[in-house]
Amino acid sequence: MFYTDGKLQFPVRVERPNPVFAKALQQAIGGVEGEIRVCLQYMFQAFGARGPAKYRDLLLNTATEEIGHIEMLATAVALNLEGAPLSIQEDVSADVAGGAVLNGMDMRHVLSTGLAALPSDANGVPFDASHVYASGNLAADMYSNVCAESTGRVLAVRLYNMTDDPGMKEMLSFLIARDTMHQQQWLAAIEDMGGFEKNLPIPNSFPQEKEASEFSYAYFGHMVDGSIPEGRWTSGPSMDGKGEFRPQRSEPMGGKPSLAPARPDGGAQVAQSSKSGTEGMLGQIEGAIERNI
Amino acid sequence: MFYTDGKLQFPVRVERPNPVFAKALQQAIGGVEGEIRVCLQYMFQAFGARGPAKYRDLLLNTATEEIGHIEMLATAVALNLEGAPLSIQEDVSADVAGGAVLNGMDMRHVLSTGLAALPSDANGVPFDASHVYASGNLAADMYSNVCAESTGRVLAVRLYNMTDDPGMKEMLSFLIARDTMHQQQWLAAIEDMGGFEKNLPIPNSFPQEKEASEFSYAYFGHMVDGSIPEGRWTSGPSMDGKGEFRPQRSEPMGGKPSLAPARPDGGAQVAQSSKSGTEGMLGQIEGAIERNI
Amino acid sequence: MFYTDGKLQFPVRVERPNPVFAKALQQAIGGVEGEIRVCLQYMFQAFGARGPAKYRDLLLNTATEEIGHIEMLATAVALNLEGAPLSIQEDVSADVAGGAVLNGMDMRHVLSTGLAALPSDANGVPFDASHVYASGNLAADMYSNVCAESTGRVLAVRLYNMTDDPGMKEMLSFLIARDTMHQQQWLAAIEDMGGFEKNLPIPNSFPQEKEASEFSYAYFGHMVDGSIPEGRWTSGPSMDGKGEFRPQRSEPMGGKPSLAPARPDGGAQVAQSSKSGTEGMLGQIEGAIERNI
Amino acid sequence: MFYTDGKLQFPVRVERPNPVFAKALQQAIGGVEGEIRVCLQYMFQAFGARGPAKYRDLLLNTATEEIGHIEMLATAVALNLEGAPLSIQEDVSADVAGGAVLNGMDMRHVLSTGLAALPSDANGVPFDASHVYASGNLAADMYSNVCAESTGRVLAVRLYNMTDDPGMKEMLSFLIARDTMHQQQWLAAIEDMGGFEKNLPIPNSFPQEKEASEFSYAYFGHMVDGSIPEGRWTSGPSMDGKGEFRPQRSEPMGGKPSLAPARPDGGAQVAQSSKSGTEGMLGQIEGAIERNI
Amino acid sequence: MFYTDGKLQFPVRVERPNPVFAKALQQAIGGVEGEIRVCLQYMFQAFGARGPAKYRDLLLNTATEEIGHIEMLATAVALNLEGAPLSIQEDVSADVAGGAVLNGMDMRHVLSTGLAALPSDANGVPFDASHVYASGNLAADMYSNVCAESTGRVLAVRLYNMTDDPGMKEMLSFLIARDTMHQQQWLAAIEDMGGFEKNLPIPNSFPQEKEASEFSYAYFGHMVDGSIPEGRWTSGPSMDGKGEFRPQRSEPMGGKPSLAPARPDGGAQVAQSSKSGTEGMLGQIEGAIERNI
Amino acid sequence: MFYTDGKLQFPVRVERPNPVFAKALQQAIGGVEGEIRVCLQYMFQAFGARGPAKYRDLLLNTATEEIGHIEMLATAVALNLEGAPLSIQEDVSADVAGGAVLNGMDMRHVLSTGLAALPSDANGVPFDASHVYASGNLAADMYSNVCAESTGRVLAVRLYNMTDDPGMKEMLSFLIARDTMHQQQWLAAIEDMGGFEKNLPIPNSFPQEKEASEFSYAYFGHMVDGSIPEGRWTSGPSMDGKGEFRPQRSEPMGGKPSLAPARPDGGAQVAQSSKSGTEGMLGQIEGAIERNI
Repeated sequence: MFYTDGKLQFPVRVERPNPVFAKALQQAIGGVEGEIRVCLQYMFQAFGARGPAKYRDLLLNTATEEIGHIEMLATAVALNLEGAPLSIQEDVSADVAGGAVLNGMDMRHVLSTGLAALPSDANGVPFDASHVYASGNLAADMYSNVCAESTGRVLAVRLYNMTDDPGMKEMLSFLIARDTMHQQQWLAAIEDMGGFEKNLPIPNSFPQEKEASEFSYAYFGHMVDGSIPEGRWTSGPSMDGKGEFRPQRSEPMGGKPSLAPARPDGGAQVAQSSKSGTEGMLGQIEGAIERNI
Repeated sequence: MFYTDGKLQFPVRVERPNPVFAKALQQAIGGVEGEIRVCLQYMFQAFGARGPAKYRDLLLNTATEEIGHIEMLATAVALNLEGAPLSIQEDVSADVAGGAVLNGMDMRHVLSTGLAALPSDANGVPFDASHVYASGNLAADMYSNVCAESTGRVLAVRLYNMTDDPGMKEMLSFLIARDTMHQQQWLAAIEDMGGFEKNLPIPNSFPQEKEASEFSYAYFGHMVDGSIPEGRWTSGPSMDGKGEFRPQRSEPMGGKPSLAPARPDGGAQVAQSSKSGTEGMLGQIEGAIERNI
Repeated sequence: MFYTDGKLQFPVRVERPNPVFAKALQQAIGGVEGEIRVCLQYMFQAFGARGPAKYRDLLLNTATEEIGHIEMLATAVALNLEGAPLSIQEDVSADVAGGAVLNGMDMRHVLSTGLAALPSDANGVPFDASHVYASGNLAADMYSNVCAESTGRVLAVRLYNMTDDPGMKEMLSFLIARDTMHQQQWLAAIEDMGGFEKNLPIPNSFPQEKEASEFSYAYFGHMVDGSIPEGRWTSGPSMDGKGEFRPQRSEPMGGKPSLAPARPDGGAQVAQSSKSGTEGMLGQIEGAIERNI
Repeated sequence: MFYTDGKLQFPVRVERPNPVFAKALQQAIGGVEGEIRVCLQYMFQAFGARGPAKYRDLLLNTATEEIGHIEMLATAVALNLEGAPLSIQEDVSADVAGGAVLNGMDMRHVLSTGLAALPSDANGVPFDASHVYASGNLAADMYSNVCAESTGRVLAVRLYNMTDDPGMKEMLSFLIARDTMHQQQWLAAIEDMGGFEKNLPIPNSFPQEKEASEFSYAYFGHMVDGSIPEGRWTSGPSMDGKGEFRPQRSEPMGGKPSLAPARPDGGAQVAQSSKSGTEGMLGQIEGAIERNI
Repeated sequence: MFYTDGKLQFPVRVERPNPVFAKALQQAIGGVEGEIRVCLQYMFQAFGARGPAKYRDLLLNTATEEIGHIEMLATAVALNLEGAPLSIQEDVSADVAGGAVLNGMDMRHVLSTGLAALPSDANGVPFDASHVYASGNLAADMYSNVCAESTGRVLAVRLYNMTDDPGMKEMLSFLIARDTMHQQQWLAAIEDMGGFEKNLPIPNSFPQEKEASEFSYAYFGHMVDGSIPEGRWTSGPSMDGKGEFRPQRSEPMGGKPSLAPARPDGGAQVAQSSKSGTEGMLGQIEGAIERNI
Repeated sequence: MFYTDGKLQFPVRVERPNPVFAKALQQAIGGVEGEIRVCLQYMFQAFGARGPAKYRDLLLNTATEEIGHIEMLATAVALNLEGAPLSIQEDVSADVAGGAVLNGMDMRHVLSTGLAALPSDANGVPFDASHVYASGNLAADMYSNVCAESTGRVLAVRLYNMTDDPGMKEMLSFLIARDTMHQQQWLAAIEDMGGFEKNLPIPNSFPQEKEASEFSYAYFGHMVDGSIPEGRWTSGPSMDGKGEFRPQRSEPMGGKPSLAPARPDGGAQVAQSSKSGTEGMLGQIEGAIERNI
């Protein structure tokens, strides 16, 4: 259960409202690198957490912080939209370059929200919750969280570099710091669980003798000339300490796949009712009867 | 540019076709944990790679392997559908339990593909390419890849445990092994770039003095009673070795946000034209004129 | 900014776990009638609220309650999945009817979450935030909220009637009661703003003399025989007290639309370069030159 | 079954084509507030209508009107695109400000349609039919329709205010009037069914004694300081006349949720196989055997 | 503008309601092969038609027929749902096989519509209007329509074969016949415009001398062994009579792509700031200054 | 299984990088007319091909070519983004017209990819794989492919006309030529299978005597005045040579649909529990009992 105090975690100040920057900020709200995603992701990871309670608490607690980040960014979008043009005439007169503001705005900031934030990305594509990775595997989820906070911090840095508004830079410097911490804490959680050695390969609950282990540490080359891009991944001990990397040219171990001809009553063309295409449908029907389908 | 030999990387064999398992396999093709995703993800990371060529080659090469995994799984789906019922009568007569097969199938395997794979997940939701994470930041991308291969291996293990078909178990043991390697190789790439210390926080190109660094290693508590979930993330050196973790109760540093009243010509209700709701629109219009909008 | 105590607003108890009901419950989490939608909707309405602060507070406060409803339902899904089959063999042996459980489950509850909730609907379609209606017009938003709580309560009632588990019925009776209140409170907010008369038509800030008012209270008939479905909407005073309903046969006031022929360099067929299709492209090109494009 | 006369319900005239306004108009075609949505919504409500035929007729008749509104708006988009630039050179030479037109256009109006409308919103996001609310509950549907016509009229007003083209203003004044009527008629239908008292809470077919009625008229406060936003919703008789509003501080009635540990064969990490994370997997496997799963 | 008579184009009769078949029918309503798609597709092609009016009329007229097909199918879904179970108990008692009906149903037919159709496909995925192909090129559109009616008829045939209900078979035999005609009529329209020779390649308005015509009739082989799949497409005159088919082994004409290193302020890792990864960021910054960015 | 040589099929050269054209090019990558679509479409058609192997080979081989087209276009996007502005200040100073570049860019090219391509269209909408048409019917698929290559070539031509960069024109002249060939080859495949006569109507495996053949060659008129748009489709032999086209006024053969009243426990309003709305719910409940549901 949740509570609010209606205040912002960190002050949100806009000195020179910029509707184009409002559009850019949308990416941090509803983009795949954004705050709705991490908020829901940590929530669903917490709600479905099985195992030690401390990881559930960790996740739920940070999820709660993230709701407040959505709030900060949505406020920032609205403040950047104060004074935005509502009409073509107004836009033209306000901007000597002719229509530059409306052109660069998310027009739905006028049409759909009346100068407020959308739960969408910088292109106006609504957030969809398929980006909420909550796999039921704690280590996989932690890497997903590291990824989310990495792309999140990359995005925040790009927004920081894009704007020249001191208020926005200040808010972003806070969000960047929080992303720093969140990267750290999810990596710390993996360490808390035993690090690479204990956790890899993920899931660590599958007996490795059941996998085709001759391929578990081989870097496959698919270059047509047989060359293989070399690096840390082609030699030396594997990251989990359980194998040795080696390069291997990939060659087909299977043959050409060959499916049964189409059933005559399956909506295909008659020509598909045999492998050669020359047999008639009658034979095929008989075959179907023989195979008892 | 790409080439094929039309053969399978690894043999795909189905002893007892099972249309319900065909549906489950779809998750590995078109699910967010699936092969279309990693294939396109590594491709777009390669196509947009800036910096040392070896990482581009690494990505492109593995992307090329992944196309073949889509091929294997699509073949497995089609083979599991051989002999699936096409009609309600057939289904009922084949299954004493009454309709169990059609009930559990992806009905579009009959209706839309004529017993072949879809580029969709186990619920029939089509893959959408927003899941292709290619951030232009190599380290963020590598963590995204680790995440993808972790959830991918979790999924493959669950499919392995779900089926009792020896052919399918064999194919999956191969894919599980490849996921093992791919987890390793993306982690190896991060090491190749200098590991935690050199790469964190991501992006490492942003001067940390510009972030609000007093919050960079603080784990914020949002529990209403002030308690904070403890762990590796609340004490000790940070993972990047640049700070010290500490717990901190989160308290609002900002006040209540307050937006300007709605413009009278912005499509809001009259009641929204002032902060108290009691002033009339006329005053608001005058205000708008004063503010020159 | 937000806080949590990690506890449930209302107890969630499942006596007889039922994975098929878990799938049904998903609709109340990630469906268009579900809790993620209302939670984000009230949040974004609050974050973008312009005008009297009390409506912002009203919205933010209830948004905060709704986060806890997601939590309750996600917990209910996970509890309904305890003991669900992970493999085809297990499923068959547990259920004399053969595969009935896996058939009716959301297979991603096994494959993607390891027996926990998804932010998706009962068909596994992920929630997408385009359903967050936050128009910047308070009255429109309130009707959107009434609609959301109406379809939400309809859904909760259907779930209540579907299950025979006492714990689930108890939880749903609570959620149904909250939906009752939420319907009431949004209607109360409209009354608070002056009811039908003051608020209709929405938006009430557009001078009605600018609309084509001869059509503002006419119910148009599009039946080919000229008949018009009668009811409260064809006679008597209008709901806003500003007009009189009347029936009117709809007849075209405009002619057939006719667009300019396609430009020769616009990727159309040559046949489209004139209205009759008989003139050659050359003439068209000349025309284009004349029209100076 | 349906018929057409190929004519427009109301004249569509564009004096000064404006490709940027064409983009804005898209919101009224394929946006969530747009005409495809209401058209399909009223159709599916009609097609699935159970109960008195007059409501079905009401819905089907207005659905038929809405098809013509899509037609009008699509025509308006195409007319606003007449003369739009097809190339970068042309754009630059036509506009002294350099590229302003192409920048602000929906580029797919050139690339994908050859200067015609898309079934998408102002950001180019295609309409998706999840926005068709047809719940099988007539009152819920009517509120959904009121909402749709309210956001629809808000949008039309914003478009009216955005343009300075007399033809477009005229067309929009007609559509605004129709939205006025449509708001009225859906509210009239609710009155026709008995108004608030007879219809609330929706659905009115669920015996209210089955809901947890102590919470049915309580406005819950989730402010961390215990304050509760007051208004018409915290005191006085409820809107349905069946209760009395009262404020109530929300407190958790449930405890912390606690799920079973992860099954060892469920793809989780070993650390998740017990609640404390210290027990080994072996014990967990035994537990699983005991619980007979 | 449009009209209705409220009647069905063809009788819709269901003798033995089958909720599982109701789910299958959804594909014909909201699937990519379904009627909403063709209806909107022909409408948008008509609304944007440039060139001779007769093609616009052709399209608009058939679009109008298709609305009625949605109506027929939605009615068929609702009739197949009459008597469907609303609760788990009811389902179990009605079906000796235990839960087979609810398992195979679209559960949203109970939860979201109260036993009526959805604008979604057989997996519950909502129709999205990106499938409305209306390119502004008449010939491309006609082939898109041929494709739509081909997959549509394939689907209708599969539904016909799936059901054993005489009423449903009768309705589908009508829809199959209409699909026959619609395939014919769109091909006839291409003939009307001059057939292959006049229309190919599409668009025929692009001067073929501007294309890299040495590759215009070459079938490229990408088999790694240099073999090329032969057929009508590797020899003989081309279908447009303007060239001669020939096989050609595909070989790279371009080199390895090489992008500039990442800008230091672009959110990448430092390691990406040079092509070799060994140069420091300082050099890169200088380079950026030199290139004046 | 697949291979690469890391080289481009055709050289990709950009003389004057143009970030706005980069956005336009996205349509050819991730748009519905784009290369990801055809690539996956031909792959899934190949992977699911039933019948003669030569068609499978044909499809797989061209699918492999298409991967390389994605690569070319993604490279072209990245090259067009070299030197794009990363900040508002930079943009303003670079462009005398003020912000024109950022306004017209896909802002995610800065924020999400660091100046590289996205798997999205020109509006930033991600590709979704529902556009992969692979029906299991070879002829339907071929028409789908003709359609894809027709809209693809229309798009490529529009891009060619839009740009003034010689490098881009050269690349596009190659892609246009390949689209020419691909249109030809899919039409050749239909001829290879016997042309119109052998293949129509699609699917040709359904006995035409089972369709309601009196409607198979009738062009239905839905004009309210009874007129019928005439053309090749209203007279003369049908395209498959199996019938004679004729015009026919469409008249309803079915009556008004009438569904059963809503079940009292189905979440509808009480008013829906009878067809007239006047009977009480009690009677309805009794009726339900009688009908034994």
